[in-house]
Amino acid sequence: MTSTGTATEGHEAAALLERTRDAVGPHLRAAVETLPGAIRRVALYHFGWQDADGTPTAGPSGKAIRPALVLAAARALGGDAESAMRAAVAVELVHNFTLLHDDVIDEDTTRRHRPTAWALFGVPDAVIAGDALLALAQRLLAEDPHPAAMEAAARLSACVIELCAGQQADCALEEREPRDVTLDECLAMATAKTGALLGCACALGALYAGADGGTVRSMDGFGRESGLAFQFIDDLIGIWGDTGRTGKPVGADLAAHKKSLPVVAALTSGTPAAGELAALYGGPMNTPGEVGRAAEVIERAGGRDWAQECAADRMARAVHHLSRAVPDPATAEELLALAEFVTRRTH
Amino acid sequence: MTSTGTATEGHEAAALLERTRDAVGPHLRAAVETLPGAIRRVALYHFGWQDADGTPTAGPSGKAIRPALVLAAARALGGDAESAMRAAVAVELVHNFTLLHDDVIDEDTTRRHRPTAWALFGVPDAVIAGDALLALAQRLLAEDPHPAAMEAAARLSACVIELCAGQQADCALEEREPRDVTLDECLAMATAKTGALLGCACALGALYAGADGGTVRSMDGFGRESGLAFQFIDDLIGIWGDTGRTGKPVGADLAAHKKSLPVVAALTSGTPAAGELAALYGGPMNTPGEVGRAAEVIERAGGRDWAQECAADRMARAVHHLSRAVPDPATAEELLALAEFVTRRTH
Repeated sequence: MTSTGTATEGHEAAALLERTRDAVGPHLRAAVETLPGAIRRVALYHFGWQDADGTPTAGPSGKAIRPALVLAAARALGGDAESAMRAAVAVELVHNFTLLHDDVIDEDTTRRHRPTAWALFGVPDAVIAGDALLALAQRLLAEDPHPAAMEAAARLSACVIELCAGQQADCALEEREPRDVTLDECLAMATAKTGALLGCACALGALYAGADGGTVRSMDGFGRESGLAFQFIDDLIGIWGDTGRTGKPVGADLAAHKKSLPVVAALTSGTPAAGELAALYGGPMNTPGEVGRAAEVIERAGGRDWAQECAADRMARAVHHLSRAVPDPATAEELLALAEFVTRRTH
Repeated sequence: MTSTGTATEGHEAAALLERTRDAVGPHLRAAVETLPGAIRRVALYHFGWQDADGTPTAGPSGKAIRPALVLAAARALGGDAESAMRAAVAVELVHNFTLLHDDVIDEDTTRRHRPTAWALFGVPDAVIAGDALLALAQRLLAEDPHPAAMEAAARLSACVIELCAGQQADCALEEREPRDVTLDECLAMATAKTGALLGCACALGALYAGADGGTVRSMDGFGRESGLAFQFIDDLIGIWGDTGRTGKPVGADLAAHKKSLPVVAALTSGTPAAGELAALYGGPMNTPGEVGRAAEVIERAGGRDWAQECAADRMARAVHHLSRAVPDPATAEELLALAEFVTRRTH
């Protein structure tokens, strides 16, 4: 992976994210506080500002990557980050709309070490709270007097449709036989589900800085490719683990029979190991032995090396996009630090 | 109920709705066709353009009341209805977003004599298709060069949040004991769930006609009060029926223990019949005898007369709002005809 001397350790990005949380948090909360009572309660719980009974808690445990990208992109292109605040909040609201609905759809019961909103308040309240966050995001942009707001709203709406397509594809792929899933389908799904919103965040920052169309597209490409790099890394962690840093146990995705990118790469590798893996995916993988064997087979089929190369390749593409949008490396530093922070977890 | 010589029979409104469907339909369909494949399939089914297997069908069976209100409001205020087309389509998309999600939330399996989308495609696909229709509505407005588009987008987003609050309140009221529900709560719920979008449709038409703030508010009031009048009529039909016209069987809402407005009015009437009704609502009402007895008790408690008076009162308020926005009765005729069409079903 490409790395810069200043950003590799992630200290700069961590500090930037903390500053972003401090700056965006009050605006985000003020927006959520405008929601009608019963919906507000679910939203305040989901974001981590309240317990289920309304007791105040420590506050959002999300990393605020997306708002940080909006503000950093605006700054990198000579814009005033403060004036892009509504766009930063809108992107974070959209991200949380997807989390609320995805948890319902995937029947996930835990997020950030707490029960998911639907598990606590029921499916109706979680679906409705998600809907309201999406509408609130759009409302913020539609009421924003900034000259870029309307184009940003159009771009964000198009991105939401892409996120929907990604989530739909994810569900559809999970239903299918592992050996019938192609790598192209998995990549398209990851692009829509993970890349689109990171790309949109960067594009919105560029729009709010008054950038031209080509620069906006390059910024979108930077965020999108960074998101894909992240997805490869996340899929590697889901198999070979990185428990010290993420808390995600080794083999978690394998035990869940997840069709992650390294798995599908291995299954479609045409190697003898592909058949072995298909057989393993046809049965339960509950014991450490079974999971370990699957991980070993995926590695033998080339899935691990391939995913690591893809992560590096996507990161290189991201940097290339960024260098077109922001030729001066010093000015691009914040964005590069964020991209490396997102993807550095196994490095 | 207030009536005008020209509109009472509903012929004018029926013709206007047919013209609206002809005019809006192609734009609505073109918008839906831009959705990604798997989501488009669910949306085309939901609107009635396709069967589950993709076979073309007769097309939308919805009445297109909301787009008709947008276009009629624009025309009544001297605007060009054609230029308000995107707003009309956006409002219809938002309406259908609520139908898709409400059917999931309420676990309703039938809509317009066909299986609901979630019953056919599953909860994930129906939730995602609803999300996508909402995002598509916002995208249409955000990409609309009309000078009113941004204010319309803000108003529509605020309306969606109100719709969410109405649906949330509806769920919450259904969970509670019938005698603990107040009439104010029911009215607030009906205002948010039914009145808000009809009001928003009229307000968007006014915005696209370049109307001032006061006129836009009056138009919102007209649509909103018409919506409430409709809700009272619909609740009356849900108890005493109007099978010839609507196909809704007598007592359907009672068998479902629905806390409709006449029921809550009766329960909170302070009459001896209120206690009788509470007792009936505490048990099953499956036989025609039980349902008939409940209907008789609600009538004795004053619930039927009250609801009829409220419907007439709301319609009078609607007409009052309309006369402020559009003083010339001839110019207001289309809108009046639509409002009377919506509420005329038992008259």
